[in-house]
Amino acid sequence: MFGSADSLITIDLDAIAANWRLLDGLSAPATMTAGVVKADAYGLGADVVAPRLAAAGCQLFFVMSLDEGVELRQNLRLAGFDSLPIFCLSGCHAGQEDAYLAHGLSPVINDLGQVARLGMLARRHDVAIPAALHIDTGMTRLGLTPHETDWLIEHLQDGANALDGIELVYLMSHLSSAETRNATSNGQQLAAFDALRPFFPKARASLANSGGVLLGPSFHFDMTRPGIALYGAHPAGTSVTGVTGEQTAALQPVVRWDARILQLRHASTGEVVGYGGTHILTRDSLIATIGVGYADGYPRCLGGIASAQIDGHNAPIIGRISMDSMALDVTNIPEATIRAATAARLLGPDYDSSMMARDAGTISYEILTGLGRRPAWHYLDDS
Amino acid sequence: MFGSADSLITIDLDAIAANWRLLDGLSAPATMTAGVVKADAYGLGADVVAPRLAAAGCQLFFVMSLDEGVELRQNLRLAGFDSLPIFCLSGCHAGQEDAYLAHGLSPVINDLGQVARLGMLARRHDVAIPAALHIDTGMTRLGLTPHETDWLIEHLQDGANALDGIELVYLMSHLSSAETRNATSNGQQLAAFDALRPFFPKARASLANSGGVLLGPSFHFDMTRPGIALYGAHPAGTSVTGVTGEQTAALQPVVRWDARILQLRHASTGEVVGYGGTHILTRDSLIATIGVGYADGYPRCLGGIASAQIDGHNAPIIGRISMDSMALDVTNIPEATIRAATAARLLGPDYDSSMMARDAGTISYEILTGLGRRPAWHYLDDS
Repeated sequence: MFGSADSLITIDLDAIAANWRLLDGLSAPATMTAGVVKADAYGLGADVVAPRLAAAGCQLFFVMSLDEGVELRQNLRLAGFDSLPIFCLSGCHAGQEDAYLAHGLSPVINDLGQVARLGMLARRHDVAIPAALHIDTGMTRLGLTPHETDWLIEHLQDGANALDGIELVYLMSHLSSAETRNATSNGQQLAAFDALRPFFPKARASLANSGGVLLGPSFHFDMTRPGIALYGAHPAGTSVTGVTGEQTAALQPVVRWDARILQLRHASTGEVVGYGGTHILTRDSLIATIGVGYADGYPRCLGGIASAQIDGHNAPIIGRISMDSMALDVTNIPEATIRAATAARLLGPDYDSSMMARDAGTISYEILTGLGRRPAWHYLDDS
Repeated sequence: MFGSADSLITIDLDAIAANWRLLDGLSAPATMTAGVVKADAYGLGADVVAPRLAAAGCQLFFVMSLDEGVELRQNLRLAGFDSLPIFCLSGCHAGQEDAYLAHGLSPVINDLGQVARLGMLARRHDVAIPAALHIDTGMTRLGLTPHETDWLIEHLQDGANALDGIELVYLMSHLSSAETRNATSNGQQLAAFDALRPFFPKARASLANSGGVLLGPSFHFDMTRPGIALYGAHPAGTSVTGVTGEQTAALQPVVRWDARILQLRHASTGEVVGYGGTHILTRDSLIATIGVGYADGYPRCLGGIASAQIDGHNAPIIGRISMDSMALDVTNIPEATIRAATAARLLGPDYDSSMMARDAGTISYEILTGLGRRPAWHYLDDS
């Protein structure tokens, strides 16, 4: 099962495709559903995930950096998808202009400086550069500020055509609290976005991340941009209630993580386990050391908190998690079961990235993007 | 500076080599100093770090998994270091025997099952298999238990030669609390290890990790195995006091991390920053959004806690850290400085992995092994 590695991460590509179809089905047929594959497809491998999404019907992708865009362009091309639009959320920075053109990438414009630079580029090459314009409606992160937006609108209306050379494919904004259904900011951001759309009549509109897709049709516009939900996790984590509960249940689990049992050993009452000797055994114990540590992306803070599963039995992590291994208390597991076992499950449908995130005081996004590259990675694909 | 990436991690290979020489100089000339490059050289890139250590004089390496051993063997060979011993701490598991032989890797034997399996392998191929024997003296993690050790010694003394076919190059154990100079476990583990050595007269002895090297000559034996200190961090983190203080000061810093400023913008009193709108501005502010987020390995929990440095000025992180970016409050930085700046420093001599770890409630080891692969990586090498 593990070959020359000490653990195995299994990614169900069919589940990712099914989740994309599910999310796509929540919006109207005319609404396009993009695939957000930034950060290496949320840590799961954009080189494999993106072509599978394309095969499922996804026709538009988002990454963050130019680097990610170049790599995605190459991988899509290798998979036979030659001309799908790729938008880079980071925007086009000084010195990157030629690479954007060469690789057919579309920048998401975040400020007026980029508007000016892309306009000059367009005129120099006598082309229209397809781009999205990101308007900030309440994240205070990326995107044009209200002042910049006002300036731009003014200089579109006065005939100056401030967007000369730019083919404005999408007008977009980003929700700060979409995972919270009743957050007042959702309605405020929606209203602010709606108010701006008439000034950009040719641009299609996009506002919804995963949480936004689940907020309902008024948030969908012409294109949605789900990310985390594609990968089987609800944006609200384990605190999902009400209407979205059903939608969570419908998301298919994507990630499994199994670790090799490196060693099974007895230890006596009073012996201490792991670095710092923080865990003192209060009974004679059977301990399984498994081949995953924090260097593989398992959060170190979960020592003494989380458990692994061995053939359906709970095996609590005891002591501090090491860089390459951790100790499980398997005393309560029937002798025959534990002697026959070779693997312990760290992530799966019964304990998923959202539950791990809850226990680690973070969000599933950080768990997934933190998965290491030392484990063996296997992709399920029945398509 | 950043090319097509949004941040740049710079690794000073000369500093790593200097740290190795420093640590090597702390032990007697006859004591060998290995290079521990498991977990991709603590996240810094074993393919580059290990050959640089070999060039500095390091003649012995430790990795964890067979996978890591195979890759290291190939990289050392490519760099012209053909026959340096590589020990795999994970041990030789069922089905891995032929790969160990084929790649000239040496297992660290962790239990009697491995002793038996390697013995059979040796007889089948009529060779002696070089290996290290790991005896547990108080970690309760990997290594032979006291019972197993007693059994083995008994079956060496009764003429049965339980280690038949195994060339026992090293007898080793591992310290649980070496970073704490006055931990009673250090002396206890040392005594237990010393008591066992006479039963394995042909094997050289090794006990010390980085912390053990700093504990002094009685812990050094024939070979030391420093890891974290090579990479510029003291095993005791920021709580170093007394004698080891000088040694910490002597460790050269290895890692720098700089992020592209994606956008500079004004925001007004009362506006909220980032996901969840958790940060409310209490003054009109200038905000820099930079191209690093938790997907790059920057701990998400540091939002609202840590700072970046821009040309020597402090720039606190405000609001939640996003997957691909974070917001810095740069209001206090002189206008001319911030307008001219293109980068913010996240890690460097002034705020190193130990300080980041302290702020994130973890250890430098988890910070380093968590560094992402999306940033551009640059290696300094003046050798």
